[in-house]
Amino acid sequence: MQIAILLYPGFTATDAIGPYEVLSRLPGARTVFVAATPGPVTSDTGFLQVLAEPLSAAPAPAVVVAPGGPTARVPTGDVVVLDWLRAADRTSTWTTSVCTGALLLGAAGLLRGRKASTHWEDRDLLATHGATAVDARYVFDGKVVTAAGVSAGFDMALALAARIAGDRVAQAIQLGIEYDPQPPFDAGSPRTAPPEVLALVRSRARP
Amino acid sequence: MQIAILLYPGFTATDAIGPYEVLSRLPGARTVFVAATPGPVTSDTGFLQVLAEPLSAAPAPAVVVAPGGPTARVPTGDVVVLDWLRAADRTSTWTTSVCTGALLLGAAGLLRGRKASTHWEDRDLLATHGATAVDARYVFDGKVVTAAGVSAGFDMALALAARIAGDRVAQAIQLGIEYDPQPPFDAGSPRTAPPEVLALVRSRARP
Repeated sequence: MQIAILLYPGFTATDAIGPYEVLSRLPGARTVFVAATPGPVTSDTGFLQVLAEPLSAAPAPAVVVAPGGPTARVPTGDVVVLDWLRAADRTSTWTTSVCTGALLLGAAGLLRGRKASTHWEDRDLLATHGATAVDARYVFDGKVVTAAGVSAGFDMALALAARIAGDRVAQAIQLGIEYDPQPPFDAGSPRTAPPEVLALVRSRARP
Repeated sequence: MQIAILLYPGFTATDAIGPYEVLSRLPGARTVFVAATPGPVTSDTGFLQVLAEPLSAAPAPAVVVAPGGPTARVPTGDVVVLDWLRAADRTSTWTTSVCTGALLLGAAGLLRGRKASTHWEDRDLLATHGATAVDARYVFDGKVVTAAGVSAGFDMALALAARIAGDRVAQAIQLGIEYDPQPPFDAGSPRTAPPEVLALVRSRARP
């Protein structure tokens, strides 16, 4: 079972690494990081470089993961990447995204008529791709699975691991990575964050 | 403020990327991944390579992060890495670990007389380094901060971000990465995992 994780300059690291950490631990999984330009790919902060193989290393993956990042918001996208996403989706068992990776799936035409999630700040952009935005940590719609922002990839990937290999395997992966989250604040959602924190984050958002 | 994240062959990706995702978003932070052998460093699954700079790129970081991984359990460790950890700790503001990264801090002699956390499966090994094991998501003991397994680095780093830059900044980072965890199962701790899942993970553990 090949799991292909798309990289591109400006990707958000956890969007890619969260699903990787969970799905790569599935029995029989072979995970590959791919990019239109192989070699080191720099994340959104500029501080991290992950090595990628060419897109041709994953011609027909069983699972596709599209991470988000500030550059995923560019509506036209990279034609080579969108062509690869469309081709991979034709034979994939699961096509997935984290955060604004949903906008890449959308730009590739893969979200038309589907329910989908994305980062809370970008939910209104899903409609431009013919998708119905859902306020959920992750959404399964047929074989397309979309997660909310950044850290939601862990939750989505565990739910997907259960669909692929059963609850017990998913739970064993969760226990292995000690995913028993205890954030020191309850500020991870616009519903729970203090109003001044929400205003601060909104003021820094999209130009 | 330089944040140095140690890499070594066999590191667990999320142990490094969780703190990176949070701490790299602190105002004025410059994050650097360093390793005894610079260049691509392969993670524990064999599927991921992250580029590292030499240890000399971080001679006196403000924050040190030691991630865990199966290879961190080797008690003697890599002398060059342990020397770097000791030297970095001499001038650091915070010396931190995630998962079995605590065993690296321990091997460097940095946990003597301290309370510490680590992956739930390895808590008994802390005593060999003179530390007192604590069953906690993360433990602050002076300037040394140790987190539980893999995913606990997010919680630890948010708590540390609050100490460094205040609650509001930490909460804004949490909201930005939408860290509002909703795991599909309550199996992330040996206290909550179904007994057969606990047995399954234990049977795969250390030889």
